[in-house]
Amino acid sequence: MEKLRAAIRDIPDFPRPGILFKDITPLVKNPVTLRLAVHHLLHPYLDREVTAVAGMEARGFIFGSLVAWELGVGFIPLRKPGKLPYDVQTINYDLEYGSAALEVHIDALGSGDKVLLVDDLLATGGTAKASCELVEALGAEIVACAFVVELDELKGREKLERYSVHSLLHY
Amino acid sequence: MEKLRAAIRDIPDFPRPGILFKDITPLVKNPVTLRLAVHHLLHPYLDREVTAVAGMEARGFIFGSLVAWELGVGFIPLRKPGKLPYDVQTINYDLEYGSAALEVHIDALGSGDKVLLVDDLLATGGTAKASCELVEALGAEIVACAFVVELDELKGREKLERYSVHSLLHY
Repeated sequence: MEKLRAAIRDIPDFPRPGILFKDITPLVKNPVTLRLAVHHLLHPYLDREVTAVAGMEARGFIFGSLVAWELGVGFIPLRKPGKLPYDVQTINYDLEYGSAALEVHIDALGSGDKVLLVDDLLATGGTAKASCELVEALGAEIVACAFVVELDELKGREKLERYSVHSLLHY
Repeated sequence: MEKLRAAIRDIPDFPRPGILFKDITPLVKNPVTLRLAVHHLLHPYLDREVTAVAGMEARGFIFGSLVAWELGVGFIPLRKPGKLPYDVQTINYDLEYGSAALEVHIDALGSGDKVLLVDDLLATGGTAKASCELVEALGAEIVACAFVVELDELKGREKLERYSVHSLLHY
């Protein structure tokens, strides 16, 4: 994974002082590292039954849609409130500071769907856990959660203990 | 394009009363129509020199990253203010009601880059025109702008008269 690691840029003090942000835009700009990341993300699931990939707004749309494409399944966007135009299922969840919500179209998934959740980053795990529960609220099953970057010390993996979690790069 | 057209869902009065919103999520959920849309989007550019695809947050990330992937080039996200962590070039532009801004990392593109801009929707053209100018502000050239849906009566194409514009579905 050293090619991938070299394509992640550290940005100090973003979005807040004291946070060392992992910038994935250099990875996505380079078609070689983009290809590496997407194939590493999907590789564990090539032999599994996956009927859809779900990804969170907005960077999750990049990796999620590419993993869906290569697996030959559809992509389900999980969005911030007010963005999806049809009837939605909503989940509210707590963040470190304040709260947030995610929505999915009520007809996006159903029982029988086996969903791979994809995002660029696993940090505290709040958004990922809410995303899994949102998918499950539609009757679908989470096969696994796949991330490009995991920030180990934030222990997001503990919030996802019910799920299979797979990250390409650990910091 | 009838398969594609059938995969677009009309949502009345979203996001405001009187607007008939074109919902592309059913198209993206179905791998057959997703494949059709992406291949139709990129087909005119297979024989052209394209060094990068740029897409606007957030739905443009889905189609843009897939077109970039299939063309074998990198993807450049154009984002709302405050989202990109590194040094940015910003463009402010007027919307029908109020104003907006888009940002791109200053090292995302440069002179010599030939950029295909991809988004799901061409409406009034304000965001698309700003996106083109943002790419040009970094010294890169716009090869063309490709959209899944164009709302003809909003005349966005007129705002993009300097550019080659290509849409799969017209309403």
